[in-house]
Amino acid sequence: MIKASIITIGDELLIGQTIDTNSAWIATELNKIGIRIHRRVAVGDVWEEIWDALNEESKNVNVIIITGGLGPTSDDITKPLLCKYFNGSLVIDPLALENVKHIFEKLLNRPMLERNLKQAEVPDTCKVIQNKRGTAPGMIFQKENVFFFSMPGVPHEMKGMMQDDVIPFLHQKFTLSPVLHRTLLTAGIGESYLAELLIDFERELPNSIKMAYLPSYGMVKVRLSSQGGEENVILVETQFKKLKTLVEAYLVTDEDKSIPEVISQLYWDRKQTLAVAESCTGGYISHLITMIPGSSSFFMGGVVSYANEMKMDALGVPAETIQSFGAVSLQTVEKMAEGVRNLANSDYGLATSGIMGPGGATDQKPVGYVCVAVSSTKGTFSKIFQFRFDRQRNIELSALNALEFLRKNMG
Amino acid sequence: MIKASIITIGDELLIGQTIDTNSAWIATELNKIGIRIHRRVAVGDVWEEIWDALNEESKNVNVIIITGGLGPTSDDITKPLLCKYFNGSLVIDPLALENVKHIFEKLLNRPMLERNLKQAEVPDTCKVIQNKRGTAPGMIFQKENVFFFSMPGVPHEMKGMMQDDVIPFLHQKFTLSPVLHRTLLTAGIGESYLAELLIDFERELPNSIKMAYLPSYGMVKVRLSSQGGEENVILVETQFKKLKTLVEAYLVTDEDKSIPEVISQLYWDRKQTLAVAESCTGGYISHLITMIPGSSSFFMGGVVSYANEMKMDALGVPAETIQSFGAVSLQTVEKMAEGVRNLANSDYGLATSGIMGPGGATDQKPVGYVCVAVSSTKGTFSKIFQFRFDRQRNIELSALNALEFLRKNMG
Repeated sequence: MIKASIITIGDELLIGQTIDTNSAWIATELNKIGIRIHRRVAVGDVWEEIWDALNEESKNVNVIIITGGLGPTSDDITKPLLCKYFNGSLVIDPLALENVKHIFEKLLNRPMLERNLKQAEVPDTCKVIQNKRGTAPGMIFQKENVFFFSMPGVPHEMKGMMQDDVIPFLHQKFTLSPVLHRTLLTAGIGESYLAELLIDFERELPNSIKMAYLPSYGMVKVRLSSQGGEENVILVETQFKKLKTLVEAYLVTDEDKSIPEVISQLYWDRKQTLAVAESCTGGYISHLITMIPGSSSFFMGGVVSYANEMKMDALGVPAETIQSFGAVSLQTVEKMAEGVRNLANSDYGLATSGIMGPGGATDQKPVGYVCVAVSSTKGTFSKIFQFRFDRQRNIELSALNALEFLRKNMG
Repeated sequence: MIKASIITIGDELLIGQTIDTNSAWIATELNKIGIRIHRRVAVGDVWEEIWDALNEESKNVNVIIITGGLGPTSDDITKPLLCKYFNGSLVIDPLALENVKHIFEKLLNRPMLERNLKQAEVPDTCKVIQNKRGTAPGMIFQKENVFFFSMPGVPHEMKGMMQDDVIPFLHQKFTLSPVLHRTLLTAGIGESYLAELLIDFERELPNSIKMAYLPSYGMVKVRLSSQGGEENVILVETQFKKLKTLVEAYLVTDEDKSIPEVISQLYWDRKQTLAVAESCTGGYISHLITMIPGSSSFFMGGVVSYANEMKMDALGVPAETIQSFGAVSLQTVEKMAEGVRNLANSDYGLATSGIMGPGGATDQKPVGYVCVAVSSTKGTFSKIFQFRFDRQRNIELSALNALEFLRKNMG
């Protein structure tokens, strides 16, 4: 099986200033075409450390994907290093030069600087990948049957090069048989209990199939993977069907989809609409939904009713309800769900109110206490959740579990 | 200088199913106390690969932080591997056992399973780190002057152990002198131009100070770092002052803060309030603000006016404005900003409307075309932005640049 390592370069990755989202994306894309990731390594903008990483990783894999360190400033040393590593000399690439000029003259309407011109230089020992979304070209090198791909660390530039050049190049150089992953999402059962439920299933799984549990915001994904090969495709499908039957009571979706994606599909299928009133989740539910292309066809929008005035003025929650039961109560959150449904004239209204921490807790309502309500023609339903984490995680858990509560109440 | 490597374990990291946020957090914490991260390595749940990573990393560093693979299911192999690697035998740790029992009996109110009991087992060659936020204990091992710390991959469990145990342990074992980072954020100038502006400054920097450019949502951070030592503290401060003067015209903040943090501080200082009307950003601005603890003291909330009906009904945008100029126009977004300021009775109103893609574009208004408006007692101001990326990045860029436009208009 073809194996790859991903090397990400940049001091910002080692001091925690940047979260590495590129690696996960690259891993997903390589996995799709049947290339297994051996390791992911992040190193700083330090000559010896990059050099060592290239040496080490090339011992174990056929493909090395390198991102970062190609910018126009002096802390970017990837290009001179690769030039030396592959015994080349820097030369101007005419197409890359044309691209840099085009970006400055046509798109940015700014004078081009000497250092930008330098971005069109590449080692004469590489095949150039043109950058359609930025100034720094990518590079392909070969050394003893290992292919090296160097791309910028800017995510959308890297993604363009991967899709247009790297993936087609890999298809051309290797005979690839895709790895099969089948993933389902469960809710309402912990990882340990799920593992108990599946103990016999797991024991009887053929050796060629691997099973993994992936906890995700208080829910658990279960994934079956085969090591490639046509016969395993059918095997995985058969086992996945069996798995689905076993977890039926807890099954959210049998696709590798997030809850917002599952919800979107439901609304598209049913041609219904949704509006959201968010207090404690502060806009995060709306954000999760509006990140999905096409969500505007069912998502009307909503109100972030952070202050009590917004709950009353925008959503029509009676002042007495808030006074008698508190802003964080089933009574208030039910009025919020009904209020936003009225305001947006939507089929469904979803509302949240809770204590996210670190402040705001009382004895009765500690940090992580969250009320959720769903309103539709079937009536208004509400539920109390108790999470026990920090602010960020409480917001995430509240949003995802509110959406799962909505899904359940869509029948 | 003390050096560390971070090893993250889990197939989900290599197939792209999980983005590794732990590494960045750990790197930040270690950096704060003066430990330099040598490398970050991600490996799968594969015995030899974990074993090799332990061997390799321990050649170059004094500290190895390991996360992941400690769950109760059979794909989690980190504990038996570490047991073997450090020549131990598994024994029940009484405190860990008490913790597991407590969690199941008191918090979850569920029967404990055999496999959960097993979570209280640890190699007898380790020092145990008790887990105050979950069932799996952490472990500390030592081998030839290298310390190994193994923690669960669940972020809030890992964070608790780092803060309560790992960091104090490192302080006890090593004499640490913190690395000094000073970071400032600029807006309105590209990386290349900033580098031109700072070319002499960079050339004249003392060797012990490193400078880096970190592009961040169309803005650029500049960071100075010293390699540790008391004399460098003053040196960095002096250079940082010089740097601030040079970039004054573009300076957003001279702290390592995000735009939402800068905005929050402004509102706290001025005791003013803000409300937001989001169309294209779909709740993301509200989310960025409400992620900040204490934001409820200035953030009233707002309206996610995704559908035109919400723009009219909740915000009072006249139907004629939308009909004449379109939902994505300066006229509409100004009415939205004024509308949300009225609705929330806030000092400031911020509004966005734009085309995020992939659908919805016209010849005049392509994907990435965004209108932003700010309304206050000073009047209503608006601006058109043109981004040219994919949906996710357009939403992020719109939100961050809208907040920067707000900051500028706060005078």
